[in-house]
Amino acid sequence: MLSRQTLRASRGFAACFVSPQTPVLKNQRVPFSLSSKRSSAMRFIRYETSGRQGLGVALKEDDSIFDLTSFDPSVGASMQAFIAGGEDSVLKAKKAIENGKNVLPQDQVRILAPISDPGKILCVGMNYRDHCEEQNIPVPKEPVIFSKFNNSIIGPNDSIKYPDETEELDWEVEFVIIIGKEGKNIQESKAMEYVFGYTVAHDVSARDWQLQRNGNQFLIGKSMDTFCPLGPAIVTKENIKDPHNLKLWTLVNGVTKQEGNTSEMVFKTEAVIAFISRFFTLQPGDIILTGTPPGVGVFQNPPEFLKRGDVVEVGVEGIGSITNKIE
Amino acid sequence: MLSRQTLRASRGFAACFVSPQTPVLKNQRVPFSLSSKRSSAMRFIRYETSGRQGLGVALKEDDSIFDLTSFDPSVGASMQAFIAGGEDSVLKAKKAIENGKNVLPQDQVRILAPISDPGKILCVGMNYRDHCEEQNIPVPKEPVIFSKFNNSIIGPNDSIKYPDETEELDWEVEFVIIIGKEGKNIQESKAMEYVFGYTVAHDVSARDWQLQRNGNQFLIGKSMDTFCPLGPAIVTKENIKDPHNLKLWTLVNGVTKQEGNTSEMVFKTEAVIAFISRFFTLQPGDIILTGTPPGVGVFQNPPEFLKRGDVVEVGVEGIGSITNKIE
Repeated sequence: MLSRQTLRASRGFAACFVSPQTPVLKNQRVPFSLSSKRSSAMRFIRYETSGRQGLGVALKEDDSIFDLTSFDPSVGASMQAFIAGGEDSVLKAKKAIENGKNVLPQDQVRILAPISDPGKILCVGMNYRDHCEEQNIPVPKEPVIFSKFNNSIIGPNDSIKYPDETEELDWEVEFVIIIGKEGKNIQESKAMEYVFGYTVAHDVSARDWQLQRNGNQFLIGKSMDTFCPLGPAIVTKENIKDPHNLKLWTLVNGVTKQEGNTSEMVFKTEAVIAFISRFFTLQPGDIILTGTPPGVGVFQNPPEFLKRGDVVEVGVEGIGSITNKIE
Repeated sequence: MLSRQTLRASRGFAACFVSPQTPVLKNQRVPFSLSSKRSSAMRFIRYETSGRQGLGVALKEDDSIFDLTSFDPSVGASMQAFIAGGEDSVLKAKKAIENGKNVLPQDQVRILAPISDPGKILCVGMNYRDHCEEQNIPVPKEPVIFSKFNNSIIGPNDSIKYPDETEELDWEVEFVIIIGKEGKNIQESKAMEYVFGYTVAHDVSARDWQLQRNGNQFLIGKSMDTFCPLGPAIVTKENIKDPHNLKLWTLVNGVTKQEGNTSEMVFKTEAVIAFISRFFTLQPGDIILTGTPPGVGVFQNPPEFLKRGDVVEVGVEGIGSITNKIE
């Protein structure tokens, strides 16, 4: 169970990066060394300010965010391209932090989805043991893979547009893997080398279209515009001691609907990467939504769906949470 | 029925652009005027030469191809970006043709897929009346939509890699719509305004994964690496008098397997665009594979599948054909 305090502390963007006790100081210098053992433990965000987009980096959840794009304009504004840059990109981020200037004025920026242009959005269906139990279906013997289109991606505080097409809009919190480098036929034992980091997704679902229409293909029910809120940040894998022991949750209008733990994942990070890379060459910036724990609306008795005006928070321990209103 | 001669004439890249009767002349000037009524009737290709990629444009199938990227380097090498450029891009292409120089030396270039980075690859399933009949299934009452990932795209002469994962590799010729501008909730009566042009796809399919695995989700069976040969060119809509009266065909090792006509499409271009834009914002460069006519391997009696060494040609009248070896 998550305490109310834990949930509150992780809500919204400000709480994810700067606690009220940590005022942002211009030109603040944080203790950091390029040779630090934890030097790759970073959090990356994308922002928009005055019509300009860019990337930001912080060391910890409560630290200031440095404006990576202003520090080094060659970084650009595409997280996909940044991740594809590999070690060079990480070094630029380290330098931006070490420089200690270019603190991002958070009250003047809008935080975007940390990645908007992945080459693929892969999703694993029915990947929590306890979620299978709530559906009374057997645990799958191999991963079930479906996809979302990039038009579904929105930022951590953006609104989900209620589509005219559905009467069964549902929530799903998901732990997301971000691929760091190209690979095919990746062995489980080497899979973690291909992980750049993690983020949080809300896998918004139109259950009528997912389960009763479109010849049983999930695509339409999963991919409508705004159906993939992402964020608030990409945390590098060095931030997460054990990706398979993280609480994750959904609150609808402040009421807890989903509470789970990534320990219940049927196919864990290594197994999922090994499986999908048998078919598809994975590319830097590809993202994998790893499934949802129990508590989705369609399996409530009676079923419960989202309506306009609802506010949904989904979060994963150690990464943060995102809060999106249904409009 | 297609005559053997028609089929031969449309085979391969050279035949698609330069007939043996039309030698390429350096700096050849073609009769053309920017104010011509048919001035938007063009064919676009992507090429690679000496490690450099670029875009090319021709007026007709038999005409010389002009190197658009060399004529105007601001064009770059992304067809998606070129299409997104709208009228400006079309004007650059017209100028390249009018200039009459920069003829692409076709013997020194490799022709690539005309678009490699679409925002979406949308596919319509069971969209030919006669293909439904061969399966003994009713004609769908609304389009069935699935997707492919971009890792599936290869060029018109590239090899299809036979995946270790399948024993049921099958062919499907498809007529492809290329979206020209952004739109949502597009009315059928205005749908053609959103079409940039057309091309040909081979919707390679691993039937075991499409139909018997992955929880009935088509994605894996449709999206493996190299499963979407595209080309040879994008023809603008002005080149095609009636997109719903075009012959299309598949030859495997020279033997006709599929012969059909786009007149058999259940949901035609306008209806497909209107339907999918109810859910997804369409973007310039998005591509829509519109389904396949009868004659696929899995519905032969007994079923017939592709094997390493096979050569598959798929083509659509007025656009051209692509030929890919199974390796």
